[in-house]
Amino acid sequence: MLIHEDRLFPAEPSVRKIAQALYTHVRSLPIVSPHGHTQAAWFASNEPFPDPAKLFVQPDHYVYRMLYSQGVSMDDLEIGQPELKDPRKVWRIFASHYHLFRGTPTRMWLDFAFQELFGLTERLQEKTADLYFDTIAAKLRTPEFLPRALYDRFNLEVLATTDSPLDSLEHHKAIRDSSWEGRILPTFRPDPVVDPEFAGFSGLIAKLGEDTGEDTATWTGYLNALRKVRIRFRALGCTATDHGHLTAQTADLPRADAEKLFKNVLSGKADAAQQELFRAQMLTEMAQMSVDDGLVMQIHPGSTRNHNRKVYENYGRDTGADIPRPTNYVDALRPLLDRFGNESKLTIILFTLDESTYSRELAPLAGHYPCLRLGPPWWFFDSPEGMTRFREQTTETAGFYNTVGFNDDTRAFLSIPARHDVARRMDCAFLARLVAEHRLEEDEAFEVAHDLAYGLVKKAYRL
Amino acid sequence: MLIHEDRLFPAEPSVRKIAQALYTHVRSLPIVSPHGHTQAAWFASNEPFPDPAKLFVQPDHYVYRMLYSQGVSMDDLEIGQPELKDPRKVWRIFASHYHLFRGTPTRMWLDFAFQELFGLTERLQEKTADLYFDTIAAKLRTPEFLPRALYDRFNLEVLATTDSPLDSLEHHKAIRDSSWEGRILPTFRPDPVVDPEFAGFSGLIAKLGEDTGEDTATWTGYLNALRKVRIRFRALGCTATDHGHLTAQTADLPRADAEKLFKNVLSGKADAAQQELFRAQMLTEMAQMSVDDGLVMQIHPGSTRNHNRKVYENYGRDTGADIPRPTNYVDALRPLLDRFGNESKLTIILFTLDESTYSRELAPLAGHYPCLRLGPPWWFFDSPEGMTRFREQTTETAGFYNTVGFNDDTRAFLSIPARHDVARRMDCAFLARLVAEHRLEEDEAFEVAHDLAYGLVKKAYRL
Amino acid sequence: MLIHEDRLFPAEPSVRKIAQALYTHVRSLPIVSPHGHTQAAWFASNEPFPDPAKLFVQPDHYVYRMLYSQGVSMDDLEIGQPELKDPRKVWRIFASHYHLFRGTPTRMWLDFAFQELFGLTERLQEKTADLYFDTIAAKLRTPEFLPRALYDRFNLEVLATTDSPLDSLEHHKAIRDSSWEGRILPTFRPDPVVDPEFAGFSGLIAKLGEDTGEDTATWTGYLNALRKVRIRFRALGCTATDHGHLTAQTADLPRADAEKLFKNVLSGKADAAQQELFRAQMLTEMAQMSVDDGLVMQIHPGSTRNHNRKVYENYGRDTGADIPRPTNYVDALRPLLDRFGNESKLTIILFTLDESTYSRELAPLAGHYPCLRLGPPWWFFDSPEGMTRFREQTTETAGFYNTVGFNDDTRAFLSIPARHDVARRMDCAFLARLVAEHRLEEDEAFEVAHDLAYGLVKKAYRL
Repeated sequence: MLIHEDRLFPAEPSVRKIAQALYTHVRSLPIVSPHGHTQAAWFASNEPFPDPAKLFVQPDHYVYRMLYSQGVSMDDLEIGQPELKDPRKVWRIFASHYHLFRGTPTRMWLDFAFQELFGLTERLQEKTADLYFDTIAAKLRTPEFLPRALYDRFNLEVLATTDSPLDSLEHHKAIRDSSWEGRILPTFRPDPVVDPEFAGFSGLIAKLGEDTGEDTATWTGYLNALRKVRIRFRALGCTATDHGHLTAQTADLPRADAEKLFKNVLSGKADAAQQELFRAQMLTEMAQMSVDDGLVMQIHPGSTRNHNRKVYENYGRDTGADIPRPTNYVDALRPLLDRFGNESKLTIILFTLDESTYSRELAPLAGHYPCLRLGPPWWFFDSPEGMTRFREQTTETAGFYNTVGFNDDTRAFLSIPARHDVARRMDCAFLARLVAEHRLEEDEAFEVAHDLAYGLVKKAYRL
Repeated sequence: MLIHEDRLFPAEPSVRKIAQALYTHVRSLPIVSPHGHTQAAWFASNEPFPDPAKLFVQPDHYVYRMLYSQGVSMDDLEIGQPELKDPRKVWRIFASHYHLFRGTPTRMWLDFAFQELFGLTERLQEKTADLYFDTIAAKLRTPEFLPRALYDRFNLEVLATTDSPLDSLEHHKAIRDSSWEGRILPTFRPDPVVDPEFAGFSGLIAKLGEDTGEDTATWTGYLNALRKVRIRFRALGCTATDHGHLTAQTADLPRADAEKLFKNVLSGKADAAQQELFRAQMLTEMAQMSVDDGLVMQIHPGSTRNHNRKVYENYGRDTGADIPRPTNYVDALRPLLDRFGNESKLTIILFTLDESTYSRELAPLAGHYPCLRLGPPWWFFDSPEGMTRFREQTTETAGFYNTVGFNDDTRAFLSIPARHDVARRMDCAFLARLVAEHRLEEDEAFEVAHDLAYGLVKKAYRL
Repeated sequence: MLIHEDRLFPAEPSVRKIAQALYTHVRSLPIVSPHGHTQAAWFASNEPFPDPAKLFVQPDHYVYRMLYSQGVSMDDLEIGQPELKDPRKVWRIFASHYHLFRGTPTRMWLDFAFQELFGLTERLQEKTADLYFDTIAAKLRTPEFLPRALYDRFNLEVLATTDSPLDSLEHHKAIRDSSWEGRILPTFRPDPVVDPEFAGFSGLIAKLGEDTGEDTATWTGYLNALRKVRIRFRALGCTATDHGHLTAQTADLPRADAEKLFKNVLSGKADAAQQELFRAQMLTEMAQMSVDDGLVMQIHPGSTRNHNRKVYENYGRDTGADIPRPTNYVDALRPLLDRFGNESKLTIILFTLDESTYSRELAPLAGHYPCLRLGPPWWFFDSPEGMTRFREQTTETAGFYNTVGFNDDTRAFLSIPARHDVARRMDCAFLARLVAEHRLEEDEAFEVAHDLAYGLVKKAYRL
């Protein structure tokens, strides 16, 4: 077998036994997925997923960044190609490099999917590449592997996508209008129209104006347009916004200054500092709108996007060359917190790619401000060791109840059960250690395990 | 029972057995508390402590920052009120939110006090709120719970307070003049008269002049006044100073420049950089005085005080809205170390709220400079995980003998035994792992455990 | 006995058993030491090593920095003296302070050498000081303890030194010309001729010109000279360069700007920023030469050299007063990576003294760029806890195969087997936990253990 029933539980028998008991309590709870990058279109059209390479290799930057780091060419993997010319060849390259993933969460997610979904039990390697390809390809063509069937099989209760304000949300509407009862919700991610460095920014602002009937050449019209789009999103079940900024910087400018700044960035003449200030101001504007309309804010800062210039130029955005950077929260969030920090109606969920901030900034902030909550370990830290560090470094200051359960944050729909399973196991392992060391009573651990797997996410995201 | 005899020991049986043996060796050693925020007045007057809410909730920012973070109102907790109008109501709010503290050191300290001091064994929650309130209130009125009786019961050998240079130390004098033999010592904390950002700074400097008969409008008079106050403190048993600066920055200006800078900050016209430079210069001046008079220096940098503007404006200083920030030591301490770093007569104890500095800066510095020692994990890191990280990240470079035992650093007198107990258990747990992994011989571990619990603190603080 | 057969293995019996099995698989593999500071002269002349104090205390900054931190005088240890006046006295001081090393890797390395090489089994302390001194001194005079005999006894396969471009490499030549078959290789470390802050920089550049027959007063001649020296090093088996910069900053200036900058630094008029820019540019120039000639680059940034001014002035460079500083890689490496990041022919091995960069910057960079690999935990982190943190914080993102095995990086030849033994044990302990928690299959762990101990280092360093 590829995966073991006791995987991720501590080896010490008495601790493992507690972990098993806790896990048994939560393993079958529905999955609530409040943040990710799956596509509503899959569930609207309910077409079969494509071949194994297109499904597992081509869209997964965790996979191909590792292959690329060891000399595999992006072209050989057909990264960035809309259609694969030779999916079997891509799959064989992947299979013959599968040992590179030893000790990584990617390996654990993939093995889970291979075994639990496709019934494969022999390890993926060069000699099993074709067996895998053929088995997966065949199953993908069956009704049990259509998106809606998998949604049910995965025991999903809700699945949120991430969407541009310029998106028509037609697929979300189609799902609503269909007889299917799956709950696919949009998330309002305004980066394309609040980040002046986004390619084609001024054109996107103009498009925003057309979409909403507002004069987005003016600060008032621009803000109104964003408010209107939020209403449109909320009508389709959206409960949250998401903000992917380079830093966590916020600002709270006088209205006249903000207006002037907006004109400046729109003109394309703003320098880097002004662009940063505009993003900072927009976080505070978004917080104001959230106070008004109740959308939960998520802030995902600290990623240097497209670090590898050549890869970006040849293969485009989101091709695995994003690298974390040091991130400050204690000063950066202060302007926003000065204004809204004590609003108990507001919820802001903070993420980080800089783990040194867990104990130094994030847990102390979330352990004090009523509006703040800590998002789960993100991206590279969505992993057993990352989750352990998160709990060890935040719980003593922020407790469990200023955290919000798990996010899978994935494009890879088929990995969702595996990811939530890892999170549930790691939370149970952490709690088991607390119980075994008499730092938490067992009955309380059961309650906390349930909250971490199910209760907190529903409450935090207002689902 | 609320607390377990084996709490905090590793679960693996052979390691736990070693930890138990080490702990048995140190559990009954007297408590030396060289740094904290208890009040000499308690021991001078020996009046009963007030009601449970006033004792456990109102003064403890660990407690109400967590409650506040989850939407409990500061007003409902009567934070900042000199007298509580409805202590039972405050207590009930606290009790009904007690689950928030799961996994936190606060929970462990409180349960220790509830069980060991008050004999409570059922968990605090909404339904036991009144039982707790009545039990604690009744015991607090008995002679066994008077401050001096508790001092003896806690097996305290010495307890240091923290005091402004403008404090008359009348309560310390009264204790000295009494027949009671408890050892309550003042600590010289000059922040109000060395930090130009302290509210009412110039008035405080004038007051310092009046108290000492020095012309504190001059640099010479100001330094003389500080020297005189140190003499007054030392006469009452003081062995240490304490410095709570925003950063660890030090400076070593030529005398003329320092004099000019002093005039500038005193005039109120200094900008933020000059204020910072003045604090930096004063650390070096304090080091010079310590070389002369033997007082041990403690530096507690890196806390952004009063981060929450509204909470500060409504409830004042020290109401839980202090947030750590990134802190540099390697450059910041250099001016002071260039001058006094090789003085073996000088002891400077460094603390941090930025754990990333443990292995990168603090352990390498303390493992080289004769004057430097590492203070125990501070504030948010005075916790099981915080202590584990401290030992794991400093021992290999600085050893055990460049550390100084434990500080409880608390306002909460009743939590002192619990806090020292956690520290002793965690040190024994750490040592037990080293022994079990054959990284330290058992006989040496016993010696180190004793030093960490008792020997090092007495030596470092010259007690 | 001083050291235990199961040292460093986890205590839990099932995990320990796996660790033992893995270790049995790798313990006898040859030692490949691709980076360190031993001297070719030892092996060229094959003279006996000097007395115990000269061998173990005087050259080892790990040892005397700890002694110095606790008040032992550098003069009493005769640090910086070419000949020891009273080696027995130095040894006795060391012995009577040996308890300071409890819990440190130094203690573990020394005990290994004392027991395994010299047959000592009673702990070093004041009363055994003379026994140790006499036993070690006697053995050092025997043929079995000559450098070449120890090289064989240590099962070394290759040992790299670190050498200035101005070094004649005469000892390396002598070894090549001798009948001895040991493989001692030079490493090209150009710091003295690329760092304008190096004492006597312009004179060294002139010397470089004389050595190579190039006009090093010109940018072209200077670069040519470096190329010629690299050819000379490669002829003696050199496969790698090493760069010890204050930061990881790189630059990629237009040729004219680089030329002008070179003239400026050579004139001695460059300010600190220009000196830093020159070092940054030189890293990129070195990368270009490595693309051309295949030498592997090692970058060791982030050490504040000679932090203690008085110790530096009195005892010179490398006397234990180097302190790590915060180090940025994500921005600093970008200019170099923009140019060469996607070159699969290039290998750059990154080291750090700032562990906060492991998960935030180094693992994400190495898990993407084909040219990047992660060096093992360096210096203060060449320790059990340091190695654990390294694997825990890098493996999930960079995998095992973007790391390069172990470096002992030592001046202390006699500690080499102990250091590699610690590394092998810690890697086996880490792998054993993965196996016990069903995160890695046992057969794969055996393969990885072999790669970490032997395969990866040979491949990465092209040996």
